[in-house]
Amino acid sequence: MSDFTAVGQPRPIIDGKAKITGTAQYVPDLQLPRMLHARLVPSSYAHANILGIDTSDALAVPGVVAVLTHNDLPDIVPNSRSNLLLARGRVMFVGQPVAMVLATSETAAADGAERVMVEYEPLPVAITVEEALASDAPLVWPNGIPKGSGDAGEHGADVGGGEVTHEGEKATNIAQEGFYKRGDVAAGFAAADVIVERTYTSPMVHQSSLETHGIIAQPDPISGGMALWSSTQDPFGSRKEVAGVLGIPESLVRVKGAVIGGGFGAKFTLYDPLVAVAARAVGRPVRLALTRSEELMATNPAPPIRVDLKIGAKNDGTLTAIQAHVFVDAGCYPMSIAKFVGFQLGSYYPVANLDIQAIEALTFKQSTGAYRAPGAPTAFFALDTAIDEIAEKLDLDPIEVRLKNAARPGDLLADGDPWPGMGMRETLQRVQAHPLWKNRDQARAEGHGVGVAIGGWMGGTSPAAAVCNVNRDGMVQIHVGAMDISGSTTGFTLLAAEAFGVSPDKIQIVASDTENSPFATGTGGSKMTYTTGVAVVKAAEEARRQVLAIAAEEFEAAVEDLEIVDGNVQVRGTPTKSIPLGEIAGQGMKFDSDYPPVFAHGRTVITDQSPGFCAQLIEVDVDQETGEVKVLHHVTVQDVGRAINPMAVEGQMMGGSTQGLGWALYEKMTYDEDGQLLTGSWMDYAVPDSMQVAPKFEAIIVEVPSEHGPFGARGVGEPPVTPTAAAVANAIAHATGVRMTDLPMTAPTVLRTLHGQNGQS
Amino acid sequence: MSDFTAVGQPRPIIDGKAKITGTAQYVPDLQLPRMLHARLVPSSYAHANILGIDTSDALAVPGVVAVLTHNDLPDIVPNSRSNLLLARGRVMFVGQPVAMVLATSETAAADGAERVMVEYEPLPVAITVEEALASDAPLVWPNGIPKGSGDAGEHGADVGGGEVTHEGEKATNIAQEGFYKRGDVAAGFAAADVIVERTYTSPMVHQSSLETHGIIAQPDPISGGMALWSSTQDPFGSRKEVAGVLGIPESLVRVKGAVIGGGFGAKFTLYDPLVAVAARAVGRPVRLALTRSEELMATNPAPPIRVDLKIGAKNDGTLTAIQAHVFVDAGCYPMSIAKFVGFQLGSYYPVANLDIQAIEALTFKQSTGAYRAPGAPTAFFALDTAIDEIAEKLDLDPIEVRLKNAARPGDLLADGDPWPGMGMRETLQRVQAHPLWKNRDQARAEGHGVGVAIGGWMGGTSPAAAVCNVNRDGMVQIHVGAMDISGSTTGFTLLAAEAFGVSPDKIQIVASDTENSPFATGTGGSKMTYTTGVAVVKAAEEARRQVLAIAAEEFEAAVEDLEIVDGNVQVRGTPTKSIPLGEIAGQGMKFDSDYPPVFAHGRTVITDQSPGFCAQLIEVDVDQETGEVKVLHHVTVQDVGRAINPMAVEGQMMGGSTQGLGWALYEKMTYDEDGQLLTGSWMDYAVPDSMQVAPKFEAIIVEVPSEHGPFGARGVGEPPVTPTAAAVANAIAHATGVRMTDLPMTAPTVLRTLHGQNGQS
Repeated sequence: MSDFTAVGQPRPIIDGKAKITGTAQYVPDLQLPRMLHARLVPSSYAHANILGIDTSDALAVPGVVAVLTHNDLPDIVPNSRSNLLLARGRVMFVGQPVAMVLATSETAAADGAERVMVEYEPLPVAITVEEALASDAPLVWPNGIPKGSGDAGEHGADVGGGEVTHEGEKATNIAQEGFYKRGDVAAGFAAADVIVERTYTSPMVHQSSLETHGIIAQPDPISGGMALWSSTQDPFGSRKEVAGVLGIPESLVRVKGAVIGGGFGAKFTLYDPLVAVAARAVGRPVRLALTRSEELMATNPAPPIRVDLKIGAKNDGTLTAIQAHVFVDAGCYPMSIAKFVGFQLGSYYPVANLDIQAIEALTFKQSTGAYRAPGAPTAFFALDTAIDEIAEKLDLDPIEVRLKNAARPGDLLADGDPWPGMGMRETLQRVQAHPLWKNRDQARAEGHGVGVAIGGWMGGTSPAAAVCNVNRDGMVQIHVGAMDISGSTTGFTLLAAEAFGVSPDKIQIVASDTENSPFATGTGGSKMTYTTGVAVVKAAEEARRQVLAIAAEEFEAAVEDLEIVDGNVQVRGTPTKSIPLGEIAGQGMKFDSDYPPVFAHGRTVITDQSPGFCAQLIEVDVDQETGEVKVLHHVTVQDVGRAINPMAVEGQMMGGSTQGLGWALYEKMTYDEDGQLLTGSWMDYAVPDSMQVAPKFEAIIVEVPSEHGPFGARGVGEPPVTPTAAAVANAIAHATGVRMTDLPMTAPTVLRTLHGQNGQS
Repeated sequence: MSDFTAVGQPRPIIDGKAKITGTAQYVPDLQLPRMLHARLVPSSYAHANILGIDTSDALAVPGVVAVLTHNDLPDIVPNSRSNLLLARGRVMFVGQPVAMVLATSETAAADGAERVMVEYEPLPVAITVEEALASDAPLVWPNGIPKGSGDAGEHGADVGGGEVTHEGEKATNIAQEGFYKRGDVAAGFAAADVIVERTYTSPMVHQSSLETHGIIAQPDPISGGMALWSSTQDPFGSRKEVAGVLGIPESLVRVKGAVIGGGFGAKFTLYDPLVAVAARAVGRPVRLALTRSEELMATNPAPPIRVDLKIGAKNDGTLTAIQAHVFVDAGCYPMSIAKFVGFQLGSYYPVANLDIQAIEALTFKQSTGAYRAPGAPTAFFALDTAIDEIAEKLDLDPIEVRLKNAARPGDLLADGDPWPGMGMRETLQRVQAHPLWKNRDQARAEGHGVGVAIGGWMGGTSPAAAVCNVNRDGMVQIHVGAMDISGSTTGFTLLAAEAFGVSPDKIQIVASDTENSPFATGTGGSKMTYTTGVAVVKAAEEARRQVLAIAAEEFEAAVEDLEIVDGNVQVRGTPTKSIPLGEIAGQGMKFDSDYPPVFAHGRTVITDQSPGFCAQLIEVDVDQETGEVKVLHHVTVQDVGRAINPMAVEGQMMGGSTQGLGWALYEKMTYDEDGQLLTGSWMDYAVPDSMQVAPKFEAIIVEVPSEHGPFGARGVGEPPVTPTAAAVANAIAHATGVRMTDLPMTAPTVLRTLHGQNGQS
């Protein structure tokens, strides 16, 4: 199928063994001399003035060394959630850190935190987006909304589009407002033979990594600098924010991305600055490892989103118009995702007539953030159930209707730019050929059906650098700054092996910290292999050239006549003239060397996106008496451009699809009208377990090569979570005839819808 | 004087503050979870069979976790001192580690070590070189002498020359034998008008770093690899040796060169392999920090050397012949330095008739090793007091006689190769012009005189690599693998600042470990600035080019029209068009960058030596009643090619000169006839203190640029220790008329010589 020797070979994740055996050292496993343990005192109110903080009881707890409040920290304008630090006078959400107790043990810190007495003056709240947009709503930021950290951009969700400005207008809770318009939607709907118009909602959903956020900060008394160990997706981003809060140059901050137990977008910079200022305040190393409750209360989950969507189509299935209103409830800080939700609604099925408005509002809840393909599960839940319903109403094949309307490279995106090369149609065609789809009508029965949906992700871009050197033992070392959250290290191994021409066993990836490693952007947006992978390939190719140049001198042969076979450099056709790679490299590692060390770098920037698409087929049984939905068969088809490590790609596809099932059927963070989180533990918040995934799961890889990624690779991580909710909803419709519009589709919700009690069916 | 803006500017040592304030973390300051403390059980005999080791009492000590003997360690042929590990059946020197006690505290380990009972069967010994060369001498290595670690080569002391082989002959204690011959010495002496013939000796001298050797080894249970923190001059060398002893690829070993409290040649790899195998044996981190007594007993001090020297000269001072026999007492392992001592005797004053023989013998004492300019203080003590005596006998000016005979570039070295470019004559001419020299005859009085001598060092060579990147804060980071033992980091700062065109304050040197840093050879041979410095310059120049290329695009200007001024890139002559360097670099560190990161490397090899010379003037008072020598004025003149950091250069000159005074007047490790060290503490072994250096010290820099070093720099570290002993001896001769031939010239020795009791005067 290909001439590759390493790329495309399934390879177990390199760090798997350390994680499975418990020898991997996560942040809570690390110990530093004189280190203090931190516990946060969370706000009990969603909105209140702080009248006083009494720390005396807490300080009396044995082992408690200090109780920090905002008075002990720099007075910084908290223009992003990560530099909110400790509450200063006012709280904006339940769980907001008000004080930090530092103690010589975790338990002492916890005891101390319970004894910090905070006196509050409760204030009125706006908890839902509707409340937040009311004209008399209490304002989250009466003096102006901060710009936000904008990590959506990191994910490839940073898009153009019109923007309404409000200069001179009175303060509101509106954090972002934008629109995408073209043509004439009124005319478009007038020309339509069928229209679907519905309101779709998705709740606040938590990334739910197995490991909570963990950070250690260690001050350097001489330089005034700070070293951090952080379970972060973005060490270089953390470095920047920590330096900003400390008011010191970035170069004095060193961030080591620790072993990470799941990121999914939640582990961009959040508590690193707080821990750093705390460490500086006490002049000792400080560790904060969140409890699960803190994790659920205050770590930037996915925002609740409402989409009012109207789609019109001709009898042949051709779409005539799309109109949408998007409402994102970002919590207390802007997430800057509303426009991107609208962008997606207007891009995947290009139409001549488009009118999309998107509003992001702030509420008195925790801030929200990136979660695997931010905004996309909701966008596709709306878009791809609506198009499914169009097909149903027109009695057309749902995949044919999608193929008729699906974007092609060069078609217009919502913002008027052209679609880059991508495989949306190839992905749809692959599911179309699947037996589960072909036999769906035969398989259909009362309460039993098969649904399809497609999703995708535009993909991130970024600059990257990598280093390659060769050791005396023949190992080819690759140095990258990229945080591995889900297998990129193993992918880099295969890329470097392919580029250098050695076995993957001879590749060693070194990812250190912001001081030692080449720069990389945060790991998000399905872009690490896509961007840093290119730098890895360039570095390996250059190091290979250096090795061959040394060998050519040693052999007195032309470089063109040399080859690398089984870790030896040899003269083509003369296997007796052969030197082990390590020996060649060793020629540059001696006191009396005639050659410099083998040492190369790759330096790249990718400025073009390579969107990745994922289609899923889902077969369900719907219990008509309980509303329970059972997923029986789950087929995930994904265009990955080139599967560098098919084993990791399939793992991503299964993982993303499973998280998609969480969106579809189980997960919802619920707040009461006062802004109290009702689902503050994993007893209340339901993440799918192994009994809830489909007993039959298939991952099918499609390869429409990208022009930019290494060996044609596209981003893999995000697409598989995007179509699942829509596919499940479409399967339920196929099985029952009712259309679900609210996530998650829990048994009670399905039952109510079956009974026509949701007002939309 | 020069167009440099950074090079040549005095700059305090960057790490000075951390060291002065006690915040620098040396190996004994580091703590790892579950770490055990090691204490060695030293051999009580210089030569004995081990009949048994009883560890039961030691194991009963609370806190003692394990007592390791050779049975617990890999059975490795100990072909170098660093892989001797624990004694296997036989001991070869007093202090040789026989067992290692591992405990949860230092004190428990020490208690345990005292309770390990070793039963010995004493064997005959040979302690002096004369005993070792006797025909019936007991053999240190009855089955063949190991090749040795040869770290002399690292210092630039690796030279050619004839070698006598002994194939098929019976085993001896002779580790190295070589000769340098040309012309006809008999004829040369026959043609001489004056001949000086003497035997010169120098004792075993210890490097006496303030910090003893310290190592921590931490095993990785998953990979089978090992991480080490070591107070080493040579992390990459340690990595190689540790990997060899563990039997694993080098790439699984990571060595971090810890903060080092003095190296001086003693801290090449010594105990790292032992600590690593111990850590593997117990599966826990192990730390060994030597006591001062262990340090003196078993850490490769400088070898005792005897030189029988005969020099002939014409009445005009022209040398006619040099004949020498060199005897090096290397202790129990070859040091491979004897030939180099002979090489020096035959090179600095080239003569037509040369006959030099050098023998290195093994004795039942600790192995010896490199100490600042290995072999050179003794070689110059012999050569430059003999030539001084020639001048005295001929009533010629001693410096004129030296200038008449001193080597010029292109003259023959002892091995027949030509001298590279160097400034021996310029250095001599500079001391000649000094008032202390010009007025020496007026100043001369009974017991008061001024002596001169010259010394030098051939200088090391090596391959090197360095990386340069630029951070968003405008800091230019330089990454090197070089261990900084005496200021190279500060020198690299100036080199990079000069090459990049920014202030030294904007340079940050990152030296990490063998896994993260570009390769560097060990720091020795006065070659770090000389070799890695070139890689630093290349990396900085390349990064500068990258920055200018980005700026050119941003400004839409030609690169040639850009300049870097005060940390800003600007269009020449248009100061309004100016962007901070960090902002340019930041262009390549964003999600949506149009540019790759600024990231460059330098990769070099220097294969040519650039010898450095040092001449010293010393004014002394000799107390004729006690023999005490007081140094009153000490002038050190050194050709450093280019003083990158004059402050550090002067520090090196003062430090080396002071260690030279130790050689001259104070330091001697004494063994009794059974091989027991009689000077096992700093109460018995005299290192010069601040009261013993000259109250008046001058460092005068000469700059005869090297063709190879960065901006013309030559090696600086070693030369200043080389002439001191000869200069002191010549000053004593000037003051008293007697010639000293044995180091150190302690008061009793001087008194005996004044009384004609040394048989040579």
